[in-house]
Amino acid sequence: MNDGPRPTTATPEAEPDVATELAELDELERRLYSLGYGMTQISFAGETSDPPASAPGRAEALATLDEMAHGLLCSEETGRLLERLSSKATELDATHAAEVRVLSRDRRREANVPAKEAAALTRLTSEAEDVWRRAKRADDWASFEPYLDRLVEMRGRLAGYVDDSRDPYDVLLDEYEPGSSRELYDAFFEQTKACVVPLLADVRHAGQVSRACVEGTFDAERQLELGRDVVEAEGLDMDGLTIAETEHPFSDCTSSRHTFIATHVYPDDIMSNVFSMLHEGGHVLYMAGVDPAYDYTCLRDGTSSGMHEAQSRFFENVVGRSEAFTPVLLGLLRRRFPERFADVSPTELWLAANRVEPSLVRTEADELTYPLHIIVRYEIEELLFSGEAKAADVPGLWADRMGSYLGVEVPNDSLGALQDTHWSCGDFGYFPTYALGGAYGAQLLDAMVGSGVDFEGALAAGDLAPIRGWLRENVWRFGRSKDPAQIISDACGAPFDASHYTRYLQRRFTRVYGL
Amino acid sequence: MNDGPRPTTATPEAEPDVATELAELDELERRLYSLGYGMTQISFAGETSDPPASAPGRAEALATLDEMAHGLLCSEETGRLLERLSSKATELDATHAAEVRVLSRDRRREANVPAKEAAALTRLTSEAEDVWRRAKRADDWASFEPYLDRLVEMRGRLAGYVDDSRDPYDVLLDEYEPGSSRELYDAFFEQTKACVVPLLADVRHAGQVSRACVEGTFDAERQLELGRDVVEAEGLDMDGLTIAETEHPFSDCTSSRHTFIATHVYPDDIMSNVFSMLHEGGHVLYMAGVDPAYDYTCLRDGTSSGMHEAQSRFFENVVGRSEAFTPVLLGLLRRRFPERFADVSPTELWLAANRVEPSLVRTEADELTYPLHIIVRYEIEELLFSGEAKAADVPGLWADRMGSYLGVEVPNDSLGALQDTHWSCGDFGYFPTYALGGAYGAQLLDAMVGSGVDFEGALAAGDLAPIRGWLRENVWRFGRSKDPAQIISDACGAPFDASHYTRYLQRRFTRVYGL
Repeated sequence: MNDGPRPTTATPEAEPDVATELAELDELERRLYSLGYGMTQISFAGETSDPPASAPGRAEALATLDEMAHGLLCSEETGRLLERLSSKATELDATHAAEVRVLSRDRRREANVPAKEAAALTRLTSEAEDVWRRAKRADDWASFEPYLDRLVEMRGRLAGYVDDSRDPYDVLLDEYEPGSSRELYDAFFEQTKACVVPLLADVRHAGQVSRACVEGTFDAERQLELGRDVVEAEGLDMDGLTIAETEHPFSDCTSSRHTFIATHVYPDDIMSNVFSMLHEGGHVLYMAGVDPAYDYTCLRDGTSSGMHEAQSRFFENVVGRSEAFTPVLLGLLRRRFPERFADVSPTELWLAANRVEPSLVRTEADELTYPLHIIVRYEIEELLFSGEAKAADVPGLWADRMGSYLGVEVPNDSLGALQDTHWSCGDFGYFPTYALGGAYGAQLLDAMVGSGVDFEGALAAGDLAPIRGWLRENVWRFGRSKDPAQIISDACGAPFDASHYTRYLQRRFTRVYGL
Repeated sequence: MNDGPRPTTATPEAEPDVATELAELDELERRLYSLGYGMTQISFAGETSDPPASAPGRAEALATLDEMAHGLLCSEETGRLLERLSSKATELDATHAAEVRVLSRDRRREANVPAKEAAALTRLTSEAEDVWRRAKRADDWASFEPYLDRLVEMRGRLAGYVDDSRDPYDVLLDEYEPGSSRELYDAFFEQTKACVVPLLADVRHAGQVSRACVEGTFDAERQLELGRDVVEAEGLDMDGLTIAETEHPFSDCTSSRHTFIATHVYPDDIMSNVFSMLHEGGHVLYMAGVDPAYDYTCLRDGTSSGMHEAQSRFFENVVGRSEAFTPVLLGLLRRRFPERFADVSPTELWLAANRVEPSLVRTEADELTYPLHIIVRYEIEELLFSGEAKAADVPGLWADRMGSYLGVEVPNDSLGALQDTHWSCGDFGYFPTYALGGAYGAQLLDAMVGSGVDFEGALAAGDLAPIRGWLRENVWRFGRSKDPAQIISDACGAPFDASHYTRYLQRRFTRVYGL
């Protein structure tokens, strides 16, 4: 099946002119955008509103649309078009040049993997996800173990198709965070451990802060209204935002003008929804802040997983858990739950929001211990891909590291190495971007303040416009047209430097715990 | 751009075998299904939950996906495939044979119209819809008038591409209701007028029945819950159903296992939502009743607009407004609004639900006057397409006919010829299917009862399973694999006959008004 009538293209002998080729590129982009729009909307409905019986039909449609998008990107015709346009990069406007560069990289990643191998991976992850789900429920590491070994083997082998000159784990790291590598993460995580492990010991010796002021149950409907208030105060364009409920919060977009947040409300944990909305709101600010000229192209959306997490964690933690912004949040809480927050002081709320508590589960971790959870996963992934460890070793490695970094004892694998879905999806190399995002954020904060933005003043006034303005100007608007390393060095005047992050953590938790 | 790597196909010289061709057909169907799934989901979100700023991006995606589906269906490759398979129809299983027949017809309708002409129509209707919307608001016929003339001219001309041996209006009628024509509708509507006009006169001379028992305001949230109760009692599979709110109620599906209803709740009109849910529920029963073997193919969904309306009106009117089912509805109303319906009797509710009141607006019409609204539109469309009338004549024709058929005076065009969106979309020939559906339903009812279904007993018991069972067996399961005329004659043992409808209306309204 081909796609039917289309503008006549020149014969292979005659070289088409740039205008014709750009029209072809625009048409390709429009189709990829539209297939992507369909997949985003279908997935969002699947996660938030679809009835149970719809699952098989939805899976079929998603797989087929994905295959069609893959087919468009990987066709030989697209390959020739991108090659011709790459060779004429100097004749192109900046947007088209960036599109050609980004599409070519996307294509290289997808087209180099033989279709059979890609299909085998899809089958394996689909099976593994199912096995993982049951294994987690039954605390049954043994059933998942062989899948993990096979997934590591297959992902490692497939990485070779993308770039056989590099270590497979480096290829995977680069896939989620262009430009990253073990070298970068090894250094970053050594520095982070050296700061956080002793800082955590100090915190544990200090007196614990209370979270009594946010304990108890809170009406779910009013929590949802509070969530809307929170992202409105954060500065989201409510005219372009869909909000719905789901099991695990996430956000998405189809363009700068249409963004999605799915949240989860726990009646007995009001802070979860508040900070989750601030977090997803940060992602949305990034997606909506991309230059609208990039809408309907591959340049829409953020440049990498790490840079996305930088924005979400910035608004969740750097802004949302700051002392200066706490009175603003307290005002919102009082508006929806006056009977509960009338007598709470800003300081009580601020301390509750920053309480440090080493725990077993990454997604429930506080800002200080969070990177340690990531480091545990990263170090294990490194060992798996270097062949120094097998899946059978993972529970032991997990227990050792959780013990020495966080000081907690792992009672079972459900609360240990089975807690996250990522590995069952074959997403090795993804976890580290979460921690990198936090570190990017701290460096961007220092650059922002250095460039004259009155950060504390904006927080205290509850008007985040100057903060959003700086981030839009230096990060958001570029979408995928700039790689993360370039964004950091242009925005900060220096390459990535983890010391901003360690200093930020020192500052914050020294103050919270009066060290 | 083509769709990238695909199974190797034979060279044009070698004739591929049937198995290869059927695999190609299945692949085509899977892609059309998936693009259709995307469009259904995107449109549903657009009508129910999308934020305002998302409109341009959604329109772009919908237009592109539609173009891709059109391109797939109309490609020369698909044309050749369908021709080869048509010539081997006897070698195919029944499902594939039906798919080839239906896809070939769909393709003929779409592929014969030159792309330029199709695009011009899309542009014109998009503009005309906008003009119509403003014209309706401002009661400004003059601004819409030239668009109506142009739309009639263009739709008539384009009909010639589909079949230049037939009258253009016949081609359009056949598009919405395969097998229909002016000959069929002329006869049907003459018979209907001959029954309804004098019956309506008798009703008007009888004493009016009261609707006091359903008047007043009703909490919107509880009305929504009532709506769920209603379709559950109707027998919908709630595990496959998405319900949401919108401006104008509608229903849709992606397969037999995933259906959608969008409803509208008016606090001051509880009956509107109840009967609208029964109506859309009828559509959903049809869509969900199609043989699951037809899922992911062009045979899913109902066979025609008229047959769809037959199901929706059957459940709204024949079932929903019946004397025997009224106690069931009353039970549902009492469950959600005990304080309002405790003292209402079944007879009071039944009379209120069947009150006849000639009015100006089609969508608010009762069951008896409804076909007259359709006849007014049909007769005007006939005159426009025969050239006997121009758009300038429409308001006069409208006033005349509304006066003589319904006995109402048309005060302005907003409540007259500007009330419906259909013409602005170029949907001429669509209205008559609404009335035809009512008549199909009455004939199906007689066949059902004739075949031994205890219709009244099922209504009284509030268990519609025997009714659904008969309709599933005789209508629903065939999906698009049978044309409407075939369904009627197979189910009823006779061709379409409007006298079932006129007798049904006589019976019902003679009883309601004690004539």
